[in-house]
Amino acid sequence: HSIVWQPLCMFGCGAVAQLVLSSGSHGLFLTVNFAFGFAATLGILVCGQISGGHLNPAVTFALCLLGRERWRKFPMYFLFQTIGGFLGAAIIFGMYYDALWDRPGAFNVTGPNATAGIFATYPGKHLTLVNGFFDQIIGTAALIVCILAIVDPYNNPIPQGLEAFTVGFVVLVIGLSMGFNSGYAVNPARDLGPRLFTAMAGWGVEVFTNGWFLVPVFAPFLGTFIGVVIYQMMVGFHEEGEVRDRRNAEAEENLRLTSVAANDKSKEATKQVH
Amino acid sequence: HSIVWQPLCMFGCGAVAQLVLSSGSHGLFLTVNFAFGFAATLGILVCGQISGGHLNPAVTFALCLLGRERWRKFPMYFLFQTIGGFLGAAIIFGMYYDALWDRPGAFNVTGPNATAGIFATYPGKHLTLVNGFFDQIIGTAALIVCILAIVDPYNNPIPQGLEAFTVGFVVLVIGLSMGFNSGYAVNPARDLGPRLFTAMAGWGVEVFTNGWFLVPVFAPFLGTFIGVVIYQMMVGFHEEGEVRDRRNAEAEENLRLTSVAANDKSKEATKQVH
Amino acid sequence: HSIVWQPLCMFGCGAVAQLVLSSGSHGLFLTVNFAFGFAATLGILVCGQISGGHLNPAVTFALCLLGRERWRKFPMYFLFQTIGGFLGAAIIFGMYYDALWDRPGAFNVTGPNATAGIFATYPGKHLTLVNGFFDQIIGTAALIVCILAIVDPYNNPIPQGLEAFTVGFVVLVIGLSMGFNSGYAVNPARDLGPRLFTAMAGWGVEVFTNGWFLVPVFAPFLGTFIGVVIYQMMVGFHEEGEVRDRRNAEAEENLRLTSVAANDKSKEATKQVH
Amino acid sequence: HSIVWQPLCMFGCGAVAQLVLSSGSHGLFLTVNFAFGFAATLGILVCGQISGGHLNPAVTFALCLLGRERWRKFPMYFLFQTIGGFLGAAIIFGMYYDALWDRPGAFNVTGPNATAGIFATYPGKHLTLVNGFFDQIIGTAALIVCILAIVDPYNNPIPQGLEAFTVGFVVLVIGLSMGFNSGYAVNPARDLGPRLFTAMAGWGVEVFTNGWFLVPVFAPFLGTFIGVVIYQMMVGFHEEGEVRDRRNAEAEENLRLTSVAANDKSKEATKQVH
Repeated sequence: HSIVWQPLCMFGCGAVAQLVLSSGSHGLFLTVNFAFGFAATLGILVCGQISGGHLNPAVTFALCLLGRERWRKFPMYFLFQTIGGFLGAAIIFGMYYDALWDRPGAFNVTGPNATAGIFATYPGKHLTLVNGFFDQIIGTAALIVCILAIVDPYNNPIPQGLEAFTVGFVVLVIGLSMGFNSGYAVNPARDLGPRLFTAMAGWGVEVFTNGWFLVPVFAPFLGTFIGVVIYQMMVGFHEEGEVRDRRNAEAEENLRLTSVAANDKSKEATKQVH
Repeated sequence: HSIVWQPLCMFGCGAVAQLVLSSGSHGLFLTVNFAFGFAATLGILVCGQISGGHLNPAVTFALCLLGRERWRKFPMYFLFQTIGGFLGAAIIFGMYYDALWDRPGAFNVTGPNATAGIFATYPGKHLTLVNGFFDQIIGTAALIVCILAIVDPYNNPIPQGLEAFTVGFVVLVIGLSMGFNSGYAVNPARDLGPRLFTAMAGWGVEVFTNGWFLVPVFAPFLGTFIGVVIYQMMVGFHEEGEVRDRRNAEAEENLRLTSVAANDKSKEATKQVH
Repeated sequence: HSIVWQPLCMFGCGAVAQLVLSSGSHGLFLTVNFAFGFAATLGILVCGQISGGHLNPAVTFALCLLGRERWRKFPMYFLFQTIGGFLGAAIIFGMYYDALWDRPGAFNVTGPNATAGIFATYPGKHLTLVNGFFDQIIGTAALIVCILAIVDPYNNPIPQGLEAFTVGFVVLVIGLSMGFNSGYAVNPARDLGPRLFTAMAGWGVEVFTNGWFLVPVFAPFLGTFIGVVIYQMMVGFHEEGEVRDRRNAEAEENLRLTSVAANDKSKEATKQVH
Repeated sequence: HSIVWQPLCMFGCGAVAQLVLSSGSHGLFLTVNFAFGFAATLGILVCGQISGGHLNPAVTFALCLLGRERWRKFPMYFLFQTIGGFLGAAIIFGMYYDALWDRPGAFNVTGPNATAGIFATYPGKHLTLVNGFFDQIIGTAALIVCILAIVDPYNNPIPQGLEAFTVGFVVLVIGLSMGFNSGYAVNPARDLGPRLFTAMAGWGVEVFTNGWFLVPVFAPFLGTFIGVVIYQMMVGFHEEGEVRDRRNAEAEENLRLTSVAANDKSKEATKQVH
């Protein structure tokens, strides 16, 4: 059950690479948003059968908090999701190797020609660490509230099979509205895996400078906790009760109708038999 | 049944913030359109079970006019939708706090560096109050006609579960084609809630200057009324009659077929029995 | 059965107006493509129950050619589709009245400040009449082949209810790839209705200069004829035969299986009875 | 079973033509990505009934490798897919004939005014042949892994009928993230057909210069092989076993339940009979 191929990071980082390395001729921030969104969709569809489509340790964490996934599985998921991010980044590095070397300052972590941002996230110039932490908490909480609504066993507003597409739209919308501060990691593995790769591939330990890398690793879990609490308060508890009541009522009603119908049919059959 | 979290305003205002604060590097007007559209979809999906997905007092008003929602619920919906808009704006304000302060004229309501437009709508320079009123009426009427077609119990062209996505497309298309005059509020709560927030968060009472704020609060209700009348004249009355006739005919036909089939089966069973 | 509200022209022309009048700040050619595509989807959904969602006389013509719609209905459809386009243009004219007057050369048909192109289509500077005619034929033929595949009763690759969305994607793709020559009318009513409106609203008879207006009125019907022939040769005839054969085979098989199952069940029932 | 109309190349090359010939006013690289993605969707839907929607010899090759398509069909598919690409390019050439001649250097293969890239793919200036080969291998492998997941008979995460849309999203995402090096052919027919057309239509044998044309013809098959191996290792083998086990278990369970239910119903009928 190990997913070591991460379409999320491969397609997502690929789109950032295309934007950065083409200096905007082959990409926009919007194309990066589309790529991360649809890559999440495809990642869930491709890997869904095996790992339940977990691409994000924050989502795994939410499911553990709610008792829908076992805690002892969490470290393995986190590990393999991070390895997947590492390999996704490696594939994009290989693919755009020439384009990277073609660029002045190919392996800069900071400055106008920096390319480290292709793989991991870095804070905008305007961003303090506190606001950055808050940014990752809000982004992840929004992600988790939406994902919990989508996969809620008591709340199935989405036709079966479209969950992955809807998750993709969530990731897209977060990118459209919450991407300016630091590139909306909202996923510890998506950030840590590629960052580790860049540290080894030539950008060096500078990628860990100033401790920013800790923000997208730890803040999302706090955001997840807040998201789970909000969802349960707003929708979850409320609904579980309501839906259970309604289902019980419906089940009784169905039972009554079925037996009536069965009686009717049997009577008709009896009429014919006699 | 109170939804105080408004994904619509949070994601929508977030996208405007991203566009404005990045001076266009991380957004386009198109990304704002996408964000409002898909945020409407997600808002309906997340909140659908509890409040029927009401995010817009104009839509609630339309359902009241048609007798599908009780009038006494309307004020509460309007209140909580506005509070939701207020909180959505507050979250985005917190998220982009540093980015806002980083900007000259961070709390300007007018001028080239104005940021008040991140939260509430303001008329373009070319727009008179009369045309602005007309703009909001048309936009809301178009929204209401489309939404009534989507949720019409007699007209179900959309596979169950895709209504929320279709509403998102409606909001997107309105933004693509009717957004240039004043930013297509077409929703009193989406405009008033964030505007109240900006008045309190540092932009001051200037956000109410010239009375523009009354337009997106009152014009949408007039537009809703017109939209309801148009839909009922064009599609609703017509269809209700037609569909009822067809359904009655079908029901009779089904009854006839069922009894024939029951006869056939019973006969076969009888043959075996004897 | 008269549809006088044309969401297609209203949203479509609105998107062009937004692009032109904002000088590109609130639109791209891509947003026009999105608007026409999704407006087609919404138009079909809103009007689908009453008129079968006919928004384009070329599509009506194709259905008449194939014997799926009666010829005597064609003139009425064409008339009301054109009136719908006229009214859609009128709504957008009213909505952007101030923005239009704010512009130097508000009512120019040609030149750098021309605004007539908001409503009807005009050929690019590079385009000869012959190539323009060919352009409309190809575009309409492509549209018709795709629409016939989507609504083909023998070929149902699309889940029921998604036809309108797929038609929207067809219109979108045609706009993305065939829109540079003259703005992809591929619909006589979409072009003629708004053009008549502009002639009356202040642009004058100049909108008919050089006879270009005849191209989007006549070429689409020729394109439709070619599209119908191509589809029938490529897919239609072929398939009708194949599908009929397969269905017959399946029907026989089902009959056999059903009677076997009925026998089995009856036997079981008999066992219980005796 | 010959598909000689290729919507993929017609719409795809059309979108590149629109971007190049309008010098960017009517297109973005994003619009090209959308066009190729949705054209793949439409191509599968239009041609799906007849040829199984094969638009790409690499996909046909993958299905042959997995034993789901017969090898002897492969050369014919490749041939007709290439002819389809040729004709698609010819249609776009005719459509944009005036626009092409309007441009200085209309038939240049290289240089700032080159137009050969409208039809076939050419490497970016930064790209070596080795990296280009690797680029096509990765792109095709990613395409194949995703397509195999989508059409996997043991893994049906996608609602029936949405496969074509999902394949379109795959092509879109590959274009968003892997298009900067050489325009993401990932399809030998899509590249070779239009290139042969350009060689004959006026660009001359220069389109074969430097042997680049061999890369999008041969590398995709190698990428397909790698993609098939990865998918089978990661998902396929694993799943086939698991799913078979689960299905067997379910089948037994169903059998048990059905016979129980049949007994129950029969008993009830018996009660009525006696």
